[in-house]
Amino acid sequence: MNKQALYHICESEYSFPLDEKKLKLRFRTMRDDDIASIDVFWNVSFRIYKEQKITPMALECVDDLFAYYTATIEADIPAYSYVFRLTLQSGKIYFYSERGLSHLYDFAFAHIDSFRMGFINKNDIILENEAFKGAVFYQIFPERFCSLDKNIDKSHVNRPWDTLDLKSQRSDVIQDVFIGGDLKGIISKLEYLKDLGVDAIYMTPITKGDTNHKYDVVDYYNVDKMFGTNEDLLNLVDAAHKLQMKVVLDLVFNHSSMRHEMFQDVIKRGKNSPYYNFYFVDGDKPTREPLNYYCFAAVWGMPKLNSNNYDEQAYFVDVGKHFIQKYNIDGYRLDVANEVSHDFWINFKRELLKIKPNIILIGECWYNSHAYLRANEFESVMNYPFLNACVDYFVTRRYDAEKFAERLNNLLMRYQDNSNRMMLNLLDSHDVERFYDRVAPNKDLYFLAVVTLIMYVGWPMIYYGDEIFMKGGPDPHNRKGMEWISHEYASYDYQLFRRILHLRKDKLVREGDIKITNVGSLFSLSRYIGDERIVLLINNSDSPLSYEVPNKEIVLSNGYNAGTFKDYSFVIYKTSKNK
Amino acid sequence: MNKQALYHICESEYSFPLDEKKLKLRFRTMRDDDIASIDVFWNVSFRIYKEQKITPMALECVDDLFAYYTATIEADIPAYSYVFRLTLQSGKIYFYSERGLSHLYDFAFAHIDSFRMGFINKNDIILENEAFKGAVFYQIFPERFCSLDKNIDKSHVNRPWDTLDLKSQRSDVIQDVFIGGDLKGIISKLEYLKDLGVDAIYMTPITKGDTNHKYDVVDYYNVDKMFGTNEDLLNLVDAAHKLQMKVVLDLVFNHSSMRHEMFQDVIKRGKNSPYYNFYFVDGDKPTREPLNYYCFAAVWGMPKLNSNNYDEQAYFVDVGKHFIQKYNIDGYRLDVANEVSHDFWINFKRELLKIKPNIILIGECWYNSHAYLRANEFESVMNYPFLNACVDYFVTRRYDAEKFAERLNNLLMRYQDNSNRMMLNLLDSHDVERFYDRVAPNKDLYFLAVVTLIMYVGWPMIYYGDEIFMKGGPDPHNRKGMEWISHEYASYDYQLFRRILHLRKDKLVREGDIKITNVGSLFSLSRYIGDERIVLLINNSDSPLSYEVPNKEIVLSNGYNAGTFKDYSFVIYKTSKNK
Repeated sequence: MNKQALYHICESEYSFPLDEKKLKLRFRTMRDDDIASIDVFWNVSFRIYKEQKITPMALECVDDLFAYYTATIEADIPAYSYVFRLTLQSGKIYFYSERGLSHLYDFAFAHIDSFRMGFINKNDIILENEAFKGAVFYQIFPERFCSLDKNIDKSHVNRPWDTLDLKSQRSDVIQDVFIGGDLKGIISKLEYLKDLGVDAIYMTPITKGDTNHKYDVVDYYNVDKMFGTNEDLLNLVDAAHKLQMKVVLDLVFNHSSMRHEMFQDVIKRGKNSPYYNFYFVDGDKPTREPLNYYCFAAVWGMPKLNSNNYDEQAYFVDVGKHFIQKYNIDGYRLDVANEVSHDFWINFKRELLKIKPNIILIGECWYNSHAYLRANEFESVMNYPFLNACVDYFVTRRYDAEKFAERLNNLLMRYQDNSNRMMLNLLDSHDVERFYDRVAPNKDLYFLAVVTLIMYVGWPMIYYGDEIFMKGGPDPHNRKGMEWISHEYASYDYQLFRRILHLRKDKLVREGDIKITNVGSLFSLSRYIGDERIVLLINNSDSPLSYEVPNKEIVLSNGYNAGTFKDYSFVIYKTSKNK
Repeated sequence: MNKQALYHICESEYSFPLDEKKLKLRFRTMRDDDIASIDVFWNVSFRIYKEQKITPMALECVDDLFAYYTATIEADIPAYSYVFRLTLQSGKIYFYSERGLSHLYDFAFAHIDSFRMGFINKNDIILENEAFKGAVFYQIFPERFCSLDKNIDKSHVNRPWDTLDLKSQRSDVIQDVFIGGDLKGIISKLEYLKDLGVDAIYMTPITKGDTNHKYDVVDYYNVDKMFGTNEDLLNLVDAAHKLQMKVVLDLVFNHSSMRHEMFQDVIKRGKNSPYYNFYFVDGDKPTREPLNYYCFAAVWGMPKLNSNNYDEQAYFVDVGKHFIQKYNIDGYRLDVANEVSHDFWINFKRELLKIKPNIILIGECWYNSHAYLRANEFESVMNYPFLNACVDYFVTRRYDAEKFAERLNNLLMRYQDNSNRMMLNLLDSHDVERFYDRVAPNKDLYFLAVVTLIMYVGWPMIYYGDEIFMKGGPDPHNRKGMEWISHEYASYDYQLFRRILHLRKDKLVREGDIKITNVGSLFSLSRYIGDERIVLLINNSDSPLSYEVPNKEIVLSNGYNAGTFKDYSFVIYKTSKNK
């Protein structure tokens, strides 16, 4: 047994409540170690001295190095003490407590060195959001999605809709290329999105800013005139809700535009400004040479906000409440969330919960986000590590099916189960090159990634144009005007994309538990509820592969036929133990 | 290399800010693995693509299984990306990123898979409390410490001060044995405590309750008449502050007494009571048979409070503010803190910080408390795992010097450095048998534990009577009346105890970093600042041991002479590289 591989820690992604009674436990060992079985010895804390219940753990998944065993315990009083018992293949027994390994365990000391869940308190539980259960998201970059509004002064537009010349003339990230997208345009396409299979739209910022991306916020409250009016936003939310679609806005609290009146006031009045402590200025007034204030990265036009200041926090709580109260917004995506203080987010969340108990907050955090995925912080983060794993399997081919399965399992074990059910999974976004651009012109290969995204647990996000195979490298090329060529939508490829999205109408795909592995060189991902199971098999190679799927109930395929997978093909089938 | 032993995770006890610029990193490997060196490749996040700084890590400590390497990085903008480079003794090189091990690392992907500290935000930093730096705590159980007040009606007293008959006649934990301690008694002993070397007193609950321990709170605001008046508390805090001593009160928010008017109102009015949701009642009104409400453990007389309810939270925020605003209290010890919601504590802390920015909160949490030791929750917890390690070394002898050192290092690596500097370390309390009781009559052995407690990093806590070798097994025998036999205080043993406590007057002991190891069968604990070092060596055995301490500057010893440690002896000496 590799003792160094053993891992469990209380109140973490290894020990978390599923509801007000159930506690899920994970225990990690080395993969393929000589362990025959693992059991949890547990009871309600004040009872464990006299009596221990024994619950066997099951192997839930493996990654390249580790095996993860899990069990769920439940009693009438949700205050648990527990230790693990490992039985080796040799019959040798170890207990694993907070004191580490021992051959014997004396439950008289359970109050000192057992693992503990003091009491499952409702406010500390990460619960799955019912309204967003398994939702398909669609990301819109409003300046580039659809131009329709005749009432808008479009004198800012300086390129045609289908331009490929998207590069700004400016040397910094302040982008000044405009093609004229607007909110009325988005409203006009909601039925199209509904038909495509979208449950929630996420729009990058729509309030006043000088750039096309609007991340340089000049006004936190009002819709940018380039996009339309506040009334358009009201209509947009209303129209989306009528179609049972949710609307998620992008809020930018890490920095503002230097042109925001708050920063302008600091420039004018220095330390006498009530907003001086909303920013990080080293000196009386901000100066550019030398740059004496923190910015977003090194962009002097976007001064960093000080999220440690309570007045600043209150200002943005008001912004957060505003769009809920006035527009009935369903959730927020939070820009550069990982550079804003936890203190800020925890307060923000608490205040918003008071007016909308099922609000969702999605942080932009590109890496391991365990520190943000707490009951009192974010439901979700943009899942870039998932994207990266897909790149490694489908693009760079650093991973084979086995390694890809291991990597995804590794990512799943980073977070609690209910956090995984709310990850915003993506293949691309406005911040990275389009996935199709990475694999074009191989649409079959592209579909393998898309079907993996849709079948994976969490909230799959489609970036506008992904469904019509738009190409585009890194920013700004990934932000082209949406191609509204109607005949595209009747194409086989478009319809296949749509059918893949519609897999989410199946409760198994929307709500099922997940199991990821490989069957030889086929990648396998299944979702299950009880005995019912839906299985995705992928042949991510340039040659055909023989494998008979064990059941005839094929839901969807692209290249599987009678035991043969053609190159870059997949099959999805259903199975149940009763059949 | 044992790949499964490698561990690092961002924003955790492996990656934490020391101040607004410095980020401390820990990296774990197997102990005695074939690793030659570990370096951090890092930079400000937006600069790492072009240039990486390289900082070597140092081996900070080892436990039984692992080696812990650490480094601190610092730049002008506290937003860091980093990966680790491991060089094996064979010369082989690995990088360790969020994607795991690889032979090469491409910094073009740093935004995707490097480790990251988004931005060090002040409100998220665990800082050491300056006012309590290295403080020596003294725990008082008010009913048992000193009886002096002639104005108090002492008709509740039903045993003489020196009684050994402390067992309640009741079958539950509601204890009804009274010997008459009071607040005026405590005030009269503050100078004694000051002389002993005490910096802060922590009193178990003093507001109205029916028992001698007062954990069955009947009134959260007013001093129990058995102990005196609110004015006595004012005088006590005032007198302590005049002596530069801090006062910490015990607050009980996990449960109240069933006799509290809130619970009585629920009994009377059921769901119509405004306090109904302050408790967990399954039904309209609470009943004992069957017991239909949650309690502290299974004690029906102490109904559990519902810390998830916002009105309940507000009620106790008011209690917390009350003792700060009216009495200028310096901190709180929070009873059964681990069964109250994190949500409650985070809100409580935030509200108290608004009126007292250097308040300290000490949770009662007996096990790994990483989930509570956050900047927005508790500074400290009662360190029972430390006690348990001392029991294993000094009492059960399950550990030898090497294993004891490993265990303490293991405990230190559980938390951030600044949390370790604020742990409330203890050898005993009102909840466990007295340490001297475990080792009596071997005072030499007792002193070894006491000197370890004092030399260890954090806040050492003395339980009343420890300094005069009071004995007493588990509750209620550990709660005897304090023995005020004045001649004791002149004894060699008392004076040695006092001298050990006074070691804390030395900045090295109060503020130094810690290093724990063994020198053969001697246990070694040193505290250092730069090149200055104070070293404790312990011979925890029943036979003499020869070892020449490398320097003549002996600060204190009990049994060391000219290269010979007698049985159960220690020496403390100072050394510096300049000498």
